[in-house]
Amino acid sequence: MNAEYDIIIAGGLLLSVSESVGIIENPVIGIRDGRIDLIETMKTGAGHSYRAKETLDATDCLVMPGLINTHTHLPMVCFRGMADDLPLMEWLQNHIWPAEAKHVNREMVYAAATLAIAEMILSGTTTFCDAYFYESSVAKAALDSGMRGIVCQGFIDLPTPNDPSRITEVAERFIEKWQGKSPLLIPALACHAPYSCSPETLSSIKDVARKAHVPYTIHVSETKEEVSIIREQYGKLPVAYLRDLNVLDRRTIAVHCNWLEEAEMDILSAFDVTVSHNPESSLKLAAGIAPIPKLLQKGVTVGLGTDGTASNNDLDLFGEMDTAAKIHKVAEMDSTVMNARTVLNMTTIDGARVLGLDDRIGSIEVGKSADIIILDTNKPHWIPLFNPYSQLVYAASGADVVTSIIGGRMVMRDRKLLTMDLPMIMKEVRKIAAAIGKDFST
Amino acid sequence: MNAEYDIIIAGGLLLSVSESVGIIENPVIGIRDGRIDLIETMKTGAGHSYRAKETLDATDCLVMPGLINTHTHLPMVCFRGMADDLPLMEWLQNHIWPAEAKHVNREMVYAAATLAIAEMILSGTTTFCDAYFYESSVAKAALDSGMRGIVCQGFIDLPTPNDPSRITEVAERFIEKWQGKSPLLIPALACHAPYSCSPETLSSIKDVARKAHVPYTIHVSETKEEVSIIREQYGKLPVAYLRDLNVLDRRTIAVHCNWLEEAEMDILSAFDVTVSHNPESSLKLAAGIAPIPKLLQKGVTVGLGTDGTASNNDLDLFGEMDTAAKIHKVAEMDSTVMNARTVLNMTTIDGARVLGLDDRIGSIEVGKSADIIILDTNKPHWIPLFNPYSQLVYAASGADVVTSIIGGRMVMRDRKLLTMDLPMIMKEVRKIAAAIGKDFST
Repeated sequence: MNAEYDIIIAGGLLLSVSESVGIIENPVIGIRDGRIDLIETMKTGAGHSYRAKETLDATDCLVMPGLINTHTHLPMVCFRGMADDLPLMEWLQNHIWPAEAKHVNREMVYAAATLAIAEMILSGTTTFCDAYFYESSVAKAALDSGMRGIVCQGFIDLPTPNDPSRITEVAERFIEKWQGKSPLLIPALACHAPYSCSPETLSSIKDVARKAHVPYTIHVSETKEEVSIIREQYGKLPVAYLRDLNVLDRRTIAVHCNWLEEAEMDILSAFDVTVSHNPESSLKLAAGIAPIPKLLQKGVTVGLGTDGTASNNDLDLFGEMDTAAKIHKVAEMDSTVMNARTVLNMTTIDGARVLGLDDRIGSIEVGKSADIIILDTNKPHWIPLFNPYSQLVYAASGADVVTSIIGGRMVMRDRKLLTMDLPMIMKEVRKIAAAIGKDFST
Repeated sequence: MNAEYDIIIAGGLLLSVSESVGIIENPVIGIRDGRIDLIETMKTGAGHSYRAKETLDATDCLVMPGLINTHTHLPMVCFRGMADDLPLMEWLQNHIWPAEAKHVNREMVYAAATLAIAEMILSGTTTFCDAYFYESSVAKAALDSGMRGIVCQGFIDLPTPNDPSRITEVAERFIEKWQGKSPLLIPALACHAPYSCSPETLSSIKDVARKAHVPYTIHVSETKEEVSIIREQYGKLPVAYLRDLNVLDRRTIAVHCNWLEEAEMDILSAFDVTVSHNPESSLKLAAGIAPIPKLLQKGVTVGLGTDGTASNNDLDLFGEMDTAAKIHKVAEMDSTVMNARTVLNMTTIDGARVLGLDDRIGSIEVGKSADIIILDTNKPHWIPLFNPYSQLVYAASGADVVTSIIGGRMVMRDRKLLTMDLPMIMKEVRKIAAAIGKDFST
């Protein structure tokens, strides 16, 4: 007889994303104290039993690591569908920024982030990396809902430049407030972009992040225009500019990277900077297509992100994987690039690497945190199941996820959210949205 | 007191896709004898009631026309995920064609088509246009499951050319067999492509289609290589070649059209040929991106299709809409092209136009056939709901569809399929797939 586990998952198909564990048919996965403590093939015959407080039967299901969203602006769920199909700058300057200036506050951010977390859990995400304002409210939403999150307090020098010493203090205080608060929560810092932050802001915020050993995220070369702005202003390409400001290292996450020249890719590779690829947002905004296959060739670690819902318009990483796998094939006119396994890695183990959490999450291995999702595969679009990687990337949907465990705690079971009052949160965000809607209804 | 309806749908939000009906909050839709007989805003107060055999409460739901998939190869669900991320010709010649040669038969086509129909209904599709071999089995699957379908018997001269008089007879017999059999079923004809069919096959099959007043579908310029083949062989661009063979008219559906020159678009427009756009398949195969915004400017009617699941790998038109709306924005570097409404039209009224069925389906209007789907919008990714077109194209998922009515008959209610034995069909296709899998497992 084995010792007692908190949760046993038994049956179905385990896709571990771990090279050593591989794929196991009919697995038994034991979870204890938030961690994966046992992985084995189910023994048949009499006398084999596992004692557990809770046993999940995964027959006809696929068990895999929870998905990792490396770039979000969760509170922007309130702006979902508010202003679509517009030119990027009109969208940003005439719709998003004015709505943010008027409606973003502590309470809005908390309610919206909670709704966004519900949407993420319902579509298989167990870890996010968010950057926004009032980020303490995002942190609180994550804590309250049992979600794993990297919460980046955001900084931007538009419309008015910040006083570097003041924002340094704000950044330090934010990290102090949240560091060590929960094993699921990591505070971090974000500068909006090279074109929207002063050199002082870019480097002083990185200094704080470096001292605190936390991630630093920044939008890089999302649009062609941004590259021109930096070239004109500083006589350099954006990545070289950031290198010269000393903000590039293993803990810097460069988001988008749609317009990189080869020399910039080499810099990212040399400085071990990781990249968050958000294909759906960049397609929808007509921003561009990042040179991901080339970055991979150069050894850069790439994770996937959805970006905010105002430019996506959902937080479903299954859709994002499908798009990521397809768009580069046509961009390179080569159907062999970005194969299903490569793309699945981007939302699991490589996503974890981007966030510096690959020792804890991103695959199902003994000793790692129990961040696990279970998908119901007893559905027509799962038949036949020749290749689970292909199925997950090209055919699965977020709605296939039935159960989700984060850090050993069940947050969803049979599609019921266990850690939040969903009807109340939906009502709250609908109320906020009604106020936003009044501004642009005629 | 009103007369009795077969079905009343009451409440929620009606997105009719009809210019005259528009969007109605709190609608009442009455269905009688397979047709939409009543559309009005729900009257409040006492004394208002609607007598119906069945009443569907659509509170917190969106009601809209069922989606139309203008290009499928349904039986290929058996090859889903069998050979992904390969070069197109290797995929086709070393995997798909040999598997087809060995495993495609009447029984396989019936079982696979039924599974595919289940997948389509579960994701909101109510009409498909299919082209394959043993198409009578697809017709039978559609009839048995209450699905609306255009079933095209397919012709190809690879590996061996057909005798034109023999295939003419086959084509005529196929149409005779199915024409008038059911109001939901329309037999039609398909030639595989200009490069894979002889000129005699292309024109003799079109002659049969023309005499029978049925659609004629053909893959056109899916890859760049095909264009070169036709240019070399006939000294013309593919569309000009087809025009000169006299196969272009209002009932010809040109599928893919990824590599059209401007003069070819003008020919399609002049001959009123419609286009089936299958973006996900063409991305995945690295085949190309069709010039859809230009075709729309030239007044060509465009519908969406998923293509077969071997190159997609699902039959979910919601994902297809999302991809269609996004891919052209980045291809044209213009975020205003292919707005949500344009794309939604492609799976509804314009899809109906492509199939020549716009007098019957594609929108919710009195007198049209009751092909209606109901989506549950009481979910996080539906909040807020500023713009239902945006929501459907950019955020909704096939799994949001809860109820589906085709020709007045309920085929799905609360996600339960009512016209087929799903577990039995899944078991059957799994058995067929196991045999296919043996060929390529080591």
